[in-house]
Amino acid sequence: MTNFADRLVSAIQRCKTPTLVGIDPRLNSLPQPLQPKSSTPSPEEVASAYLAFGKGIVDVVASLVPAVKPQAAFFEQLGPCGMAALGEITQYARSQGLLVIMDGKRNDIGSTATAYAHGFLGENGSTQFTSDCLTVSPYLGEDSLEPFVKVADENGNGIFVLVKTSNPGGGRFQDLIADGKPIYRHVASLVNELASETRGSGSHPYGAVGAVVGATYPEQLVELREAMPNTFFLVPGFGAQGGGAADVAGAFDENGLGAIINSSRGIIFAHAREPYADKFGDQRWQQAVEAATLDMIAALAADTPAGTL
Amino acid sequence: MTNFADRLVSAIQRCKTPTLVGIDPRLNSLPQPLQPKSSTPSPEEVASAYLAFGKGIVDVVASLVPAVKPQAAFFEQLGPCGMAALGEITQYARSQGLLVIMDGKRNDIGSTATAYAHGFLGENGSTQFTSDCLTVSPYLGEDSLEPFVKVADENGNGIFVLVKTSNPGGGRFQDLIADGKPIYRHVASLVNELASETRGSGSHPYGAVGAVVGATYPEQLVELREAMPNTFFLVPGFGAQGGGAADVAGAFDENGLGAIINSSRGIIFAHAREPYADKFGDQRWQQAVEAATLDMIAALAADTPAGTL
Repeated sequence: MTNFADRLVSAIQRCKTPTLVGIDPRLNSLPQPLQPKSSTPSPEEVASAYLAFGKGIVDVVASLVPAVKPQAAFFEQLGPCGMAALGEITQYARSQGLLVIMDGKRNDIGSTATAYAHGFLGENGSTQFTSDCLTVSPYLGEDSLEPFVKVADENGNGIFVLVKTSNPGGGRFQDLIADGKPIYRHVASLVNELASETRGSGSHPYGAVGAVVGATYPEQLVELREAMPNTFFLVPGFGAQGGGAADVAGAFDENGLGAIINSSRGIIFAHAREPYADKFGDQRWQQAVEAATLDMIAALAADTPAGTL
Repeated sequence: MTNFADRLVSAIQRCKTPTLVGIDPRLNSLPQPLQPKSSTPSPEEVASAYLAFGKGIVDVVASLVPAVKPQAAFFEQLGPCGMAALGEITQYARSQGLLVIMDGKRNDIGSTATAYAHGFLGENGSTQFTSDCLTVSPYLGEDSLEPFVKVADENGNGIFVLVKTSNPGGGRFQDLIADGKPIYRHVASLVNELASETRGSGSHPYGAVGAVVGATYPEQLVELREAMPNTFFLVPGFGAQGGGAADVAGAFDENGLGAIINSSRGIIFAHAREPYADKFGDQRWQQAVEAATLDMIAALAADTPAGTL
């Protein structure tokens, strides 16, 4: 069973980019050819449009990037038919050679956490939701993370734990100071311990437990990179959410590893924003996705240590 | 649109008990008549057993208690077919007059949180997952809770936010002291603010935003009851997880309101534990569920302020 960190590093090295494409479908933003015919579509019709959209994105990016990150919320919003579409997209992406990082932010304790872990991180093929990695929320403490780590590691899979987020309210609890350091640094310590306990066998320091790290200031990525030497970072917020390539440079180690950078809306809805809208528009939305992905790959290569990959 | 707190209080008063029955199916614990025929059942066969089990529990408890709490993890563990069973049980329970508190511990920010909220707390009938209430995790801060509160309150629904949990690792972050008080008290302050902003119109102080509160010591419930005067508590841990009725007494106000007490395994798998196993056994598992529910109702009435309902 190959360790998740080894699989992630080798996928990043193969693609020569740490670009992660988020699959976050929203009905009103879908390109016109995928819009449901009805003006008041049923959940099933929306789910079917999301499925076509998700598979269409996979078809474009599978040869360009190491991984995709479906956002479970947009599928769960539709009820069970949405979750069926999520399962299909997940398995399709894996069949096309992509790693799937499921963005579910699941969390619970004991055997309940184990149940989530089996749903998303269990044996290959055991459920339609089986992914390579799952995002997890840490408020419930170490015995809420350990069941995820155990199931993930047994199956060569991984988790990314929420550590520091850059939403306006993210500091409300994360930045409170206890014992001389912010809460997010307490979470960071635990996560790095778990990362170091699940290290891969490659010539890199990373483990199967990573961290979701958004930065309110670019210096925070440098601070956390130093504090969490064994922890791979999933960094959201590239593109539509505001940050550019230079802002995320601090998340990487000197070999261009240690971080995977997510863009969702900036890539998947490129058909509706310049310069792609004018050039491709709704009808050629997949070419817009391709162009936006290539631009992000180039920006990360130019302005971050990922250029050395 | 009737406020969720008003609906919850009136259901509790109608049933004269704050007993909440958790629907947490586990394959190995199902009574023998519901076990799948195959020794290595497919996810679909397990989902179908869970559906029969869930509906069978609803049939017994609908006339006895105000609400049920399905645990999403056990259904999600099976993939999309499990989620379909969860949706069916949810709608069946509502059709039988029960409030459904979905235990999903969902969390995210901005429009992603709104998507989860629409999935679980939107307009009646908009998805199979539509429930009366959802459990939510707070690590991402106030702008992660507000979208849930908004959608819930617009539709007469509610949320319970994780505040204090009694699992062994629960103190790891929740009990860290910042600005002179533990993190869980910081979360408690925010939650009580949101509760007071969503107050019902009944002659009680509670709002549509509640708190999940487990107590490591019974005194903590008293402390939090005082600190959170507008916040309804969902208290897990009755029965199988260790606590008895006297231990949860502090969660109530003097009118026997302010708390709903959950038991999952202690009730739903009563057929396998004494004194119910001997008397009813697997074949009469629904009678075991009924007897265990009535015993819990009696214990809460005898040893907590809920006796005054």
